[in-house]
Amino acid sequence: MDKICFGIDVGGTTVKCGMFRTDGTLLDKWEITTRTENGGENVLPDIAATVISKLRGKGFKEEDCSGIGVGIPGPVMRGVVPVAVNLHWGEKNVEYELGQLTGMKVRAANDANVAALGEAWKGGGEGHDELIMVTLGTGVGGGIIINGKIVEGIHGAGGEIGHMHVDDHITELCNCGHSGCLEQVASATGIVRLAREELTLDKETDSDLRTGELSAKAVFDAYKEGDLIASRIVNRFARYLGTALANIAAVIDPDIIVIGGGVSRAGECLTDIVGNYYRNIAFSSCQATPIVLARLGNDAGIYGAAKLVID
Amino acid sequence: MDKICFGIDVGGTTVKCGMFRTDGTLLDKWEITTRTENGGENVLPDIAATVISKLRGKGFKEEDCSGIGVGIPGPVMRGVVPVAVNLHWGEKNVEYELGQLTGMKVRAANDANVAALGEAWKGGGEGHDELIMVTLGTGVGGGIIINGKIVEGIHGAGGEIGHMHVDDHITELCNCGHSGCLEQVASATGIVRLAREELTLDKETDSDLRTGELSAKAVFDAYKEGDLIASRIVNRFARYLGTALANIAAVIDPDIIVIGGGVSRAGECLTDIVGNYYRNIAFSSCQATPIVLARLGNDAGIYGAAKLVID
Repeated sequence: MDKICFGIDVGGTTVKCGMFRTDGTLLDKWEITTRTENGGENVLPDIAATVISKLRGKGFKEEDCSGIGVGIPGPVMRGVVPVAVNLHWGEKNVEYELGQLTGMKVRAANDANVAALGEAWKGGGEGHDELIMVTLGTGVGGGIIINGKIVEGIHGAGGEIGHMHVDDHITELCNCGHSGCLEQVASATGIVRLAREELTLDKETDSDLRTGELSAKAVFDAYKEGDLIASRIVNRFARYLGTALANIAAVIDPDIIVIGGGVSRAGECLTDIVGNYYRNIAFSSCQATPIVLARLGNDAGIYGAAKLVID
Repeated sequence: MDKICFGIDVGGTTVKCGMFRTDGTLLDKWEITTRTENGGENVLPDIAATVISKLRGKGFKEEDCSGIGVGIPGPVMRGVVPVAVNLHWGEKNVEYELGQLTGMKVRAANDANVAALGEAWKGGGEGHDELIMVTLGTGVGGGIIINGKIVEGIHGAGGEIGHMHVDDHITELCNCGHSGCLEQVASATGIVRLAREELTLDKETDSDLRTGELSAKAVFDAYKEGDLIASRIVNRFARYLGTALANIAAVIDPDIIVIGGGVSRAGECLTDIVGNYYRNIAFSSCQATPIVLARLGNDAGIYGAAKLVID
C-alpha cells in the first residue's frame, strides 16, 4: 500500500489538517478548532487524536504513515517553538511531544516557511528547489527554500522578508519595533497606508478611492480601472516589493519567486508590475527569474507541512 | 595514513595552491602562474601537473587524496563555468576536465563563495554552518553558507551582495550596468567615491583627506584620528553596509557575519561601526548576530576550496 502522511497547519482559531499520499495527492482535508485555553495545552493532544482517528477511520495502520508535519504560527528552531503567542504557548518541543502522543515521526516548522515549501512542492513553484515565497496578507511573511529545504535560520527568523528595511523616511513604527519595513508598505494594511498618503498628497485628482472603504482590494480594483491615484499607489508598492525581491535574488539567486497571500488575489497585474520593477533592479543573471502567483491558497500550509516528513 | 586534499584558488595572474589534511591542517602552500594565453587552455593542465607532482613529492598516492577543490573567478553552476573573463575561458566543465586530467574527485565553485566557505571552516566564522561573508575589495563580493554548504544559486549568482540595490539617488553606473549597488558605496573604490562627495559638499572643514592620495585606507586612518570628514564618510559606508547585512539577515538569519577583503584591514573599528548600524535595523531575533573580521586573508580561497571535497 502507498505510504501516507499528514500535513497540519496550526492557526490561532482553527487547525487545518490534510491526509496525503507521499506523492502529494491530497486524500482528505478537514479542520478542528484550536483550543488555546490553559496555555494551549490541548492543541497537540487534539492534533494527535484527530490524526489517529483519521488514520484508523481510513483503514490505515501506523506503519503506513511517514509521519506528521506541522506548521506553527511562530518561530521554530529544530522542532522547538520558543513562544507562539496565538496559541498561548511558551516553549514547546512540538516534535518530541506530538511524537510521544502519536508514536509517529513529527517535523515542525514556521507556518510561513511551510507555506513556501508547499508552493515549491505542489503550487506556483512546483518542481523548483530554490525559491523565494512572499506572502502579502495583513503582514508580509515569507519563506526561502534552498536545495528543496526550508531556510529556518539560527533563531527561526529565516524568511522574515516583511522586516527588510526598505525606506529611511517612514517614522511610524512597524509591529517589529523598527520603522521602514517592507511590511509597512507591501502588506494589505501597508497598501492602505500608501493609499492614505497619496490621497492626502493629491486632493485634486478624481479617484474611486475617495469614496467607500479603503482596502488593498479597492486599490487594485481601481488600478485595473485605470484610476490615476491607484496607479501611483500600486507603483509605489511594486517598487518597494520588486526592489526587495531583487535584493534577495542577488544573494540567493533562486529559480522562481512566488507571491501569495490575500493581496495576491489581485492576480497577474500584480506579478506584472512587481516584475517590471524587479527586472529594472535585479542583478543581470537573475533578471529572467520568473515571478508567479501562489496556487495553493489556504492549502499551502497543509501541503508544505506534509512535505516536511517526506524525502 | 590521514587523508589529504587540495584547495586551489585560481586568479587571473596566479593560482594559489594548498595541500591539506582533511582535518583542515595546511601541509603546504605554493603558487603557480596562471597562463591565460590561448583561451586559458593551460590553466587546468597546469593545476593537474602541480597537484600530482606535489602529491608524489610528499610520498602520497592518489588513493590518499579526497580530491581537489577549485575556486574560480566567475560564476560556477554545478561544476561548470559558463564564462570566466579573467582566465580567458568560455564555457568549461572544470569538474569533468580536471577530473579527467587527474583521476581524482574535483569540485569547483565561485571564488568569493569558496572564500566564505573557508572562513566558515577555519576562519572568522569557524564552527558556524550558517554564515554571511562579505568581501570588501576593489568590488564587493560575498558568499552565503547554509547548512555548511555554499548557496551557489541557480545561475551561479549566489552571494552577489555587492549588487544589492541600496540607493535610489546614485546615477553613475555600476560595473553590473545598474546604479545604486552596494559595491558603489562599500568597496574600496566606493569609499573613495563617498570621500570625494563629502569633500566636495564641505569645502570648509579641515581634513587630512584634502592632501595625499584618497584611498579607503586613508579614510579609515583619518577616521581613527578623529577626522570629521572621514567620520561622515565611514558612517555613510557603515549605514549602507549595516542595512544590507540586516536585510540579508532578515531573510536567512545566519549564525555569524564575516567581513573580509582589503577594506577590512581597517580592523575592529569597521565591524564596530557597521555593527551599530546593523543592530539599529536588524529584525529583533537577529540583532545579536555577531559581525566579525575574516581571519584567513588571502588563504580563505584555498581553505574553502579544500573544504569543497571534504565530507
